[in-house]
Amino acid sequence: MRQSQLFTKTLKESPKDEMAKNAELLIRAGFIYKEMAGVYAYLPFGIRVLEKIKQIVREEMNAIGGQEIIMTTLQRKELWEKTNRWDDKKVDVWFKSQLKNGTDVGFGWSHEEPITNMMRTYLSSYRDLPAYVYQFQTKLRNELRAKSGIMRGREFVMKDMYSYSLDEETHQKFYDGTKDAYMRIFERIGLGQDTYITFASGGAFTQFSHEFQTITNAGEDTIFINREKHIAINEEVINNKILKELNITKEELEKVKTAEVGNIFNFGTSKCEKLGLYVAGKDGKKTPVFLGSYGIGITRLMGVIVERFADDKGIVWPESVAPFDVHLVSLCRETTDITKVDMLYKQLCAEGIDVLYDDRDARVGEKFADSDLIGIQTRIVVSPKTLGQGKVEVKKRTEDIVNLIDLNTIHTCINK
Amino acid sequence: MRQSQLFTKTLKESPKDEMAKNAELLIRAGFIYKEMAGVYAYLPFGIRVLEKIKQIVREEMNAIGGQEIIMTTLQRKELWEKTNRWDDKKVDVWFKSQLKNGTDVGFGWSHEEPITNMMRTYLSSYRDLPAYVYQFQTKLRNELRAKSGIMRGREFVMKDMYSYSLDEETHQKFYDGTKDAYMRIFERIGLGQDTYITFASGGAFTQFSHEFQTITNAGEDTIFINREKHIAINEEVINNKILKELNITKEELEKVKTAEVGNIFNFGTSKCEKLGLYVAGKDGKKTPVFLGSYGIGITRLMGVIVERFADDKGIVWPESVAPFDVHLVSLCRETTDITKVDMLYKQLCAEGIDVLYDDRDARVGEKFADSDLIGIQTRIVVSPKTLGQGKVEVKKRTEDIVNLIDLNTIHTCINK
Repeated sequence: MRQSQLFTKTLKESPKDEMAKNAELLIRAGFIYKEMAGVYAYLPFGIRVLEKIKQIVREEMNAIGGQEIIMTTLQRKELWEKTNRWDDKKVDVWFKSQLKNGTDVGFGWSHEEPITNMMRTYLSSYRDLPAYVYQFQTKLRNELRAKSGIMRGREFVMKDMYSYSLDEETHQKFYDGTKDAYMRIFERIGLGQDTYITFASGGAFTQFSHEFQTITNAGEDTIFINREKHIAINEEVINNKILKELNITKEELEKVKTAEVGNIFNFGTSKCEKLGLYVAGKDGKKTPVFLGSYGIGITRLMGVIVERFADDKGIVWPESVAPFDVHLVSLCRETTDITKVDMLYKQLCAEGIDVLYDDRDARVGEKFADSDLIGIQTRIVVSPKTLGQGKVEVKKRTEDIVNLIDLNTIHTCINK
Repeated sequence: MRQSQLFTKTLKESPKDEMAKNAELLIRAGFIYKEMAGVYAYLPFGIRVLEKIKQIVREEMNAIGGQEIIMTTLQRKELWEKTNRWDDKKVDVWFKSQLKNGTDVGFGWSHEEPITNMMRTYLSSYRDLPAYVYQFQTKLRNELRAKSGIMRGREFVMKDMYSYSLDEETHQKFYDGTKDAYMRIFERIGLGQDTYITFASGGAFTQFSHEFQTITNAGEDTIFINREKHIAINEEVINNKILKELNITKEELEKVKTAEVGNIFNFGTSKCEKLGLYVAGKDGKKTPVFLGSYGIGITRLMGVIVERFADDKGIVWPESVAPFDVHLVSLCRETTDITKVDMLYKQLCAEGIDVLYDDRDARVGEKFADSDLIGIQTRIVVSPKTLGQGKVEVKKRTEDIVNLIDLNTIHTCINK
């Protein structure tokens, strides 16, 4: 992508009511645009990062048997009344409206109810189980406050998966498999080391649920961790009983601020019973289905990555989710030189490398500052001087060393 | 994808309140699920078709310089008041709700206002123009009636592009280029021959706008066409003046029912003036920007394709948008035979061919009926008898001829 043709620009300032570092940097660098508090549009850079994160999650969900679908935003009152989650006193994040004929509708903040109800159409026998479905859905939540940038929005993208199993054993096996898949995701996007599977408060059917918490000062949660034993407990549930169970003392634990990047939850058979999802078992008798739900906040992850890796110059993207593989920065102003850089750009693109090409007529300082702010790992600088020697300067975003590289061996510097 | 693992099933019947052929077939074949009137979820088959259509549209939008973004569902009242489109008396398809603090919010049924307002952040000089942005957005429209299946939904996916140009000439050139890009899209998805660029009622700034109308009895529009001259006029605007301008008589025109699959619209500078989008011109003076908007109903297109090509056995997908390249139907029941079909399946997948593999333990008649209903062009049937000869039966969805093909030359039958 040629930067001269990009409609966004880097900005000196983000909106003055923006308090979160993630949103501030993402707005200034041109990844997102703030429509209102907690509601952000995703611009060309932003949509690239989102799609890269989604693709990693998609691959891991497919690998454990997930089938992708997309449910609806509009929600039916009757369904949510069956599980007592329509009433604003029970669920306080609903946006609601009405059809022209006066029928109440809600806007999806979660999708357990409609997916489970839909499954009544497709699951009727034990032979139809297990079934694993997931979606990337834009969730709408009427949050009282939205001060954490894209880490807690009124409108955000979530991957939510649902598992339907015949018995507790199959259910538990998939539940545990999802834990591993989630950790692979966090590792692939660069957050593996800082992310802990955390004991948190369970529902009616399990003592604990599991959260995936990433250490960051921008997080809203507090957990106690032991880095060596890789044990983590949410502040909400820590007590002597659980410490004893985990064979650890409070002194061995460190208190850290974290953001919840994923959670997995065991509903047992309760949700399916309320919504009437039963199948005929091997003995022919009707039996309710075991439901698990598994969430990852896609846009939140993007925010956490920014918070985790940014430095005083701007964003630093892990290569796996960066909007581009390479930032090609041209300092050339003569037509013959520009032609050569254009050729290099086209050559790299033809090889399947995603290149952001700063071909703007701008000052050198501005180009370097923008490059740091945008945060692509590998920067290739082409100046008239080095070009004359058939060389370019290559610098990593987080390193100070500049390497002079022969144009013919440029590929050795690009991870793709 | 192994059909035995797919959670959806073909259904004998669609919901009894479903009147549209497109939705009826898509529900029965397992592409979509009806949440409520005009509101459909997209299942594994359906999401594949949607993504294929989107990718074709994306390629053509990128080719004319479009930059992909994604705006927000939640909308601010103030913006829409500036163009007098907040009031329910002016726009009767709004869904509205409120934030916790009582602030009114709307749910996006269109995005000219927020995109144009956002552009004030990025476009300030003539040097920043032109700018072309587009998105694939889930639009919410509170339609009074929703009886056309996925051809007119209360929740549907639209590709909307917006062009910002400095002067009328640049604007007109892009507008005309988009016409060509749109026709390439309709050709690529198989509707080229039946789709007409149609004169329709213009706004305040042009006598006519242009609609793209596809001939189908399921359509809600009526147009007059001349197939040879490829001229089309919407019933709404036909009169002696336009007939004379186009040098055609009413007798030369044929009246047909059509569905509007795309439209392009010229706002002149009016919308940008109302929303305050001005740039500094070459002379330094503030000048308002020319806006064009260009829509394609993605989910509607899927419905129109079904209506256009379906026969009495079920759906018929054009190859470019089909959920799979091949339907591999196994009639084998012996383990040694099944192993061979499994190997064929894996081999095709490894070659990058999208295969739906009917590995179910089901009756032959059921398998063939399902295959016809799902509508993939190329069907490969493996039976114990032909397998013994190292051959398979290949049949096209719309042809009766069955060809006995050598397993080694199977690739010649697959368009990929």
